[in-house]
Amino acid sequence: MSDTFKDRIAAYTERVDQGLDAALPLSSTSPKRLHEAMRYAVFNGGKRVRPLLVYAAGECLDVNAELLDGPAIAIELIHAFSLVHDDLPAMDDDDLRRGKPTVHIKYDEATAILAADALQPLAFSVLVALQGVPDRAKNRLVALIAEACGSTGMTGGQSIDLAAEGRSLSATELERMYSLKTGALIHAAVISACLLRDDLADSDVAAIDAFGREIGVAFQIKDDILDVEGETHVIGKLAGADQRLGKATYPALFGIDASRQRCDELSSSALHHLDNFGDSAAPLEWLARFIVERGQ
Amino acid sequence: MSDTFKDRIAAYTERVDQGLDAALPLSSTSPKRLHEAMRYAVFNGGKRVRPLLVYAAGECLDVNAELLDGPAIAIELIHAFSLVHDDLPAMDDDDLRRGKPTVHIKYDEATAILAADALQPLAFSVLVALQGVPDRAKNRLVALIAEACGSTGMTGGQSIDLAAEGRSLSATELERMYSLKTGALIHAAVISACLLRDDLADSDVAAIDAFGREIGVAFQIKDDILDVEGETHVIGKLAGADQRLGKATYPALFGIDASRQRCDELSSSALHHLDNFGDSAAPLEWLARFIVERGQ
Repeated sequence: MSDTFKDRIAAYTERVDQGLDAALPLSSTSPKRLHEAMRYAVFNGGKRVRPLLVYAAGECLDVNAELLDGPAIAIELIHAFSLVHDDLPAMDDDDLRRGKPTVHIKYDEATAILAADALQPLAFSVLVALQGVPDRAKNRLVALIAEACGSTGMTGGQSIDLAAEGRSLSATELERMYSLKTGALIHAAVISACLLRDDLADSDVAAIDAFGREIGVAFQIKDDILDVEGETHVIGKLAGADQRLGKATYPALFGIDASRQRCDELSSSALHHLDNFGDSAAPLEWLARFIVERGQ
Repeated sequence: MSDTFKDRIAAYTERVDQGLDAALPLSSTSPKRLHEAMRYAVFNGGKRVRPLLVYAAGECLDVNAELLDGPAIAIELIHAFSLVHDDLPAMDDDDLRRGKPTVHIKYDEATAILAADALQPLAFSVLVALQGVPDRAKNRLVALIAEACGSTGMTGGQSIDLAAEGRSLSATELERMYSLKTGALIHAAVISACLLRDDLADSDVAAIDAFGREIGVAFQIKDDILDVEGETHVIGKLAGADQRLGKATYPALFGIDASRQRCDELSSSALHHLDNFGDSAAPLEWLARFIVERGQ
């Protein structure tokens, strides 16, 4: 392919949006309000970074996009679920996300709790429903994604994050929290394609694995930096929200310069793991750069 | 087996409790508070009716308990998750469950939301992890249980239930809501064993399916009756809670006599579906009677 991954982003985004649309029950079917809220949560103007990572890793490992629609859609559903619960009054208490009212503001708190609760099993339904993927690979994807969103993954990281408000953490503790809260799902996105190939060298799997872990932590540090630097109309939520909540973040604990430096270090290291893949790693490399250089 | 199912309940309950204990992360591992709350939610004195239905259907269909530990544990984890969210202030706002503080009272609201969020993926992890179950059957169990707890199952039923507060429903509408809110997971428990046998006659599967659907609705009507009649110290939560919330229940809409009659009708009809199974249906028959005759 002579064009860059950037040229294929619109097509992949369209592809995952169509998959999400097909997976989500219609708003016209009962319970309508719940289905409307689920769709509102999913079609929220998100950049679909996780699905793009799934497909980019697929290009790198020569796994067809058809086989990767399951994890791409499932991981985005899990991500959407987590945002709805994160925004609740008992959690981060956010009224805005990407410039629009959060689900509990647009609907109500009970609907927000339940809409997210229903997005999670939908992800697992999608994983086992898709044609053409061997049963064993489906089970491995269920295991991967269930682990990534559970108490030793994303949800555990969110729990540690809330407990850390107003406290000081070491850089190691903070990055451990980031590797769960944000990293676990990003890692799952990157590694999904590996589960659809039985013939990969262990060293290749280890390289993709390490790339996924580091780029996930870099992603969260970049989010922190944007929260400090961003203007509300650009990042779509109130800038400086982390600071007001007394969140333990990289900029709050170590300053903005150290944050930028660590983000660059992690992304360089992540890219370095891809050296052996040569040109086929270009899509992942492009996305890694996008993650740390994006303006929102 | 010359003894009755009742004589095996203690062993099955012990079996599922051991399985739950093994599946749940230790409270001593990070994030400790989250893991403690997850265990508190699961080990709450519940009767394990759903796992018992899984094993009873297994006895009826000659499926080994070893193959059924996955769905038994998974369905109980999903049930525990749903109770934690149902009890939240934005939902039913219950302070007590089975005589003990609910999870958000014992811990805090954020921990309750997250603990339940983490129980759900754990259920799917358990389903795909167990040894000895063919990959295809695991896939089918994931699909069954994901569907049962999603927006067209349990969570959808809960959403309709909240929307119905203070409103009048027809008996058909009410039973439709019950078949989702309570029935979907009970039906999944009953039908699980069918997915582990490829050689069942369609008529046998249809009979188990119909039994599962009817006994699930009967279970909820019995719960309603207990809520009206029960004393707080016996049912372990404030008696009459449904009435105070203006819940659309069978007794509230149609009276206690009609509720008892409908509960009996449903259980008789459910039992009738088992006629062709002869003596091997005794465990399911015993549980069906327990469900509608229990005092709490």
